[in-house]
Amino acid sequence: MADSFDVIIIGSGPGGYVTAIRASQLGLKTAIIEKEALGGVCLNWGCIPTKALLKTGEAYEQLSHLADYGIKVEKASFDFTGIIKRSRKVAAQLNAGVAFLMKKHKIEVVEGTAKLEKGSPAPKVVVALKAGGARTLTGKHVILATGARARTIPAVGLEPDGDRIWTYREAMAPKSAPKSLIVIGSGAIGIEFASFYRALGGEVTVIETLPRILPVEDEEVSTTARKAFEKRGMKFRVGAQVEKVEKPKTGGVRVTTSSGGKSETLEAEVAIVAVGIVGNVEDMGLEALGVKINRTHVVTDDHGGTGVPGLYAIGDVAGPPWLAHKASHEGVHCIEHIAGLAPSNLNAPIPGCTYSTPQIASVGITEAGAKEKGIAVKIGRFPFRVNGKAIASGETEGFVKTIFDEKTGALLGAHLIGGEVTEMIQGFALAMTLEATEAELIATVFPHPTMSEAMHEATLDAYGRVLHI
Amino acid sequence: MADSFDVIIIGSGPGGYVTAIRASQLGLKTAIIEKEALGGVCLNWGCIPTKALLKTGEAYEQLSHLADYGIKVEKASFDFTGIIKRSRKVAAQLNAGVAFLMKKHKIEVVEGTAKLEKGSPAPKVVVALKAGGARTLTGKHVILATGARARTIPAVGLEPDGDRIWTYREAMAPKSAPKSLIVIGSGAIGIEFASFYRALGGEVTVIETLPRILPVEDEEVSTTARKAFEKRGMKFRVGAQVEKVEKPKTGGVRVTTSSGGKSETLEAEVAIVAVGIVGNVEDMGLEALGVKINRTHVVTDDHGGTGVPGLYAIGDVAGPPWLAHKASHEGVHCIEHIAGLAPSNLNAPIPGCTYSTPQIASVGITEAGAKEKGIAVKIGRFPFRVNGKAIASGETEGFVKTIFDEKTGALLGAHLIGGEVTEMIQGFALAMTLEATEAELIATVFPHPTMSEAMHEATLDAYGRVLHI
Repeated sequence: MADSFDVIIIGSGPGGYVTAIRASQLGLKTAIIEKEALGGVCLNWGCIPTKALLKTGEAYEQLSHLADYGIKVEKASFDFTGIIKRSRKVAAQLNAGVAFLMKKHKIEVVEGTAKLEKGSPAPKVVVALKAGGARTLTGKHVILATGARARTIPAVGLEPDGDRIWTYREAMAPKSAPKSLIVIGSGAIGIEFASFYRALGGEVTVIETLPRILPVEDEEVSTTARKAFEKRGMKFRVGAQVEKVEKPKTGGVRVTTSSGGKSETLEAEVAIVAVGIVGNVEDMGLEALGVKINRTHVVTDDHGGTGVPGLYAIGDVAGPPWLAHKASHEGVHCIEHIAGLAPSNLNAPIPGCTYSTPQIASVGITEAGAKEKGIAVKIGRFPFRVNGKAIASGETEGFVKTIFDEKTGALLGAHLIGGEVTEMIQGFALAMTLEATEAELIATVFPHPTMSEAMHEATLDAYGRVLHI
Repeated sequence: MADSFDVIIIGSGPGGYVTAIRASQLGLKTAIIEKEALGGVCLNWGCIPTKALLKTGEAYEQLSHLADYGIKVEKASFDFTGIIKRSRKVAAQLNAGVAFLMKKHKIEVVEGTAKLEKGSPAPKVVVALKAGGARTLTGKHVILATGARARTIPAVGLEPDGDRIWTYREAMAPKSAPKSLIVIGSGAIGIEFASFYRALGGEVTVIETLPRILPVEDEEVSTTARKAFEKRGMKFRVGAQVEKVEKPKTGGVRVTTSSGGKSETLEAEVAIVAVGIVGNVEDMGLEALGVKINRTHVVTDDHGGTGVPGLYAIGDVAGPPWLAHKASHEGVHCIEHIAGLAPSNLNAPIPGCTYSTPQIASVGITEAGAKEKGIAVKIGRFPFRVNGKAIASGETEGFVKTIFDEKTGALLGAHLIGGEVTEMIQGFALAMTLEATEAELIATVFPHPTMSEAMHEATLDAYGRVLHI
C-alpha cells in the first residue's frame, strides 16, 4: 500500500531530514512530512541564513580595520536589500538541496500538517495536505522532529507583530536595517542578531534577565564576550527584567525594565525577542496518545522513545540543547536503534557555537558546573594575544580554557572565544568523545602557526607546562 | 661554574626555544645560543611574518568579492611599505616575546656562533660571541637546533642576489611589490609567496620540476589547488626544469626552462627561489666529532641522539618535514627523554599547512602513499560546495578527503583544501594520535553549521554513509 511506510518522520529540519536519509541508507521505506519548507527553521530562518548575514557583518566591520593591514578603502557602504537577498538565496539553495537529497534517497515528501491518532504498531499519521484534503499514513515507526519556535511572553508585550517587534524570523529579512534596536535575551540567537545589526552601524542594546550575557557559557567567556561587544559599541543591561514592551504612537518601541527595584525605559526603532525556545508539541494529538510532555518538550528515553509504542522524538521537540547537530545526532541514533544496530552513545558531547565577532564555542562542563557537581578539576587557559597566528592575523581577542578531571585527567569541558573557534571546537568534541586525557592532548602535534595551538597550550597550562606565557 | 649547564641548545627557533623552556620547567640549567635573532627563521623571516603578509593579501583579495556580500567599496589601494612594516612589527613582537620567555625561565641566552669540540660527557661548545671574543660552555647535554635555510643552485643561477633573485628572506621585505615574478618551486613556501604577490596584483608564474604543484600533498589537493590559483590568475609550468636564470642588463630576470625536450624563456621583474631547504650542518665541527650526516641533515635515533655521547639534534637540522611544530615536538621529546621521563611518541602524526587562498592542510598518508605501501584503504571525500556554512560564507572551494585502513578502520590520512582548513586539521591530527577509527569519528558530533562538518561527512563517505551529497 502506497501510504504505508517503515518510518514516518514529522518535520524536515536537519534532525528530520538527516534521519530520513539515514533511514533510507538502512533500507527503510521512509516518508517525511513538512508543513512549511524543507529544511525547517534551521535552513530557512535559522542557522544558515543568519550565517550569511553574519558573514556580511563581519566583512563590513573588518573594513574599518583594514588600515592596520596596510589597505586603504576610500568609501564603503552596504546595500541592505542585497544583504538580505543573498541570505535568502543561500537559504533557498539549501532548501533545494534537501529536496534533491529526498529525491535521491527515494524519501516521500508529504507537504502538510500532521496529527497523530491511535494506531498499531505505531500511531497513525493524518496529514492535512497543503494542497488541500487529507492523507493518512501508517508506519511501523513514527519520529517526531517538529522542532521549536521562539518563546513569546504576550503578558508583557513580548510578542512579535512583524513590524516593530521581531523574533528571529522577522529579524532575518526586514525591509531596512533599523538604526536602533533592543535585543531582549542574550543567548546565541540574541547575540548573533545584535552582532549583525551592530556591525552595520545600528545602536544596539541587549537586555538579559540573568546577571551575565550568554548565561549558558562559562563565566570567563561571558565576561570577555561582553567586553569585546562593548568595544564594538554594543550596550548591555544585565540582571534586568522586562516589565513591558510598548509601541508608542510616535513609532518605535519602548521597553521598560526593572533591575534591583529600579526601573528604566529604553527606546528604539525595533525590538527583537530572543528569550528562549519552546518545543512544537501542540495540536498533534500527543496528549490523547498519552505522550509525556515536560513543559514544552516531549520526554524521551535513551533511544528517543516516548513510551508510546512506535513513537519517538528527536531534536528540539525532545528538549535542549536546541541545536541542529544535536537533533541530527539523536535522529541517527534513533533510526539506527530502530534498525537493530548498536548506535553510538545518544548522550555524546554536544558542542555549541555563537557566530558573533569574536566567535564563541564550547563543549562539556563549565567551571561553575564542575564546582556544582563537586568534581575536582584542573583548569588551563591560554589567551590569543600571545598566539603567533593570532598576532599575525590581528585577531588577538579571546582565549581557550580547558577543564580536566583532576583524578582521571579526562577532558571535561572546553570554552573558547576568538577568531575561528567555531571551526576549532570539533577537536575538543572529538577528544571528549574519545575520552581523551591531558596526556593524549599534549602528545598531539598542533600545526604552527595556527590559532589552534592555543588548544594545546591551554591543555599544557592546566598541568603547569604552558610554553608561551 | 657559570659556564657549565645541564643543557646547551644551539639555535633559538621554535624547536630550540621551546626545548629550552621545557628544560627549564624540568629544573635543568639551560643555555641557548643564537647567532642572529631569537626565534630563528620561523619567527623572524618565516612562518610568522609571512602569515602577516598573507592576511593582508587575503583581505585585499576579498575586497573584490564584497559585492557578493552586499558591500560596496568605492576605491581600495594598498600601501606596500605599510604591509611590510606590519609584518616586521609582528616578527619583532614575537622576537621580544621569546626574549621575555627566556628571561622568565632563567635560560641564559648567548649571542654568537657555536662550534663543537670533543668533550665529556658531551661535546664542548665554543661560542664566537657577537659582541666579540669567545666563550666556552660545557654542558651535560648539547642539543643542535640550528635549523635550515633555502637551497640554492648556483650552477644554474639559482642564487639570491638580494636584488632581482630572492629567497624567502628577501621576498619577505622588499622595497616595493614586483609587478611580475617567477616563483621557482611550488612547495608551501613558493606557493605562499605566489599567493601573496598575486593577491596584490602581481603577474605570477610558478615553475615546478615535478609533474604537479605542491608535490608532497595528495594529488587531488594539487589538482584543486592549481585550478583555484589559476582562477586567481596565477600561471604554472609543471614538469619544467630550470636550465638557467639570467639577469639581463635591461633589468629583471630571464628564466630558461626545459620540458620534454622543449625550452621556454620566461621574463619577470624578480625571481623567488623556493626549491627546497638544506639543514644548517656546516662549520660546527660535526665531522670531526664523527656525527653522521645524510645529505644535509644530521642522522638521529628514536630520541634525537646523534650517536655522539651527549649530543642530540632536533628539528630541521635533523631532517624533514621542515616544520616548526615538528621541531618543537622533537625538542620536547628529546629533553624529556634526557630528564628520564617517558615522553610521548617521537614519531607523532605531523600536520602540514599551506596558508594560500584557499588554504591547504594535511596529515598522514596520501592515497598514492597508501597504494605504494600496499595498504588497502577506504577513501572518503566531501566538497565544501555542499557544506551549509561554506555556502553561507561564500567559501565553497575545496574539499575534505579522508583515508582509512580498510582492515582496522584506523584513520591513516586526511587532506583538506578550503577556507580555514589550517585551523581544522588539528582534529584529524588528534584522531590519528589517539588511533581513532571511523566509528569514533562518526560518533563525534560536529557543530552545525561549520565547515568542519565536512570532516564528519568525508568520514561517513568513506563508509557509504555520506549525508549531504
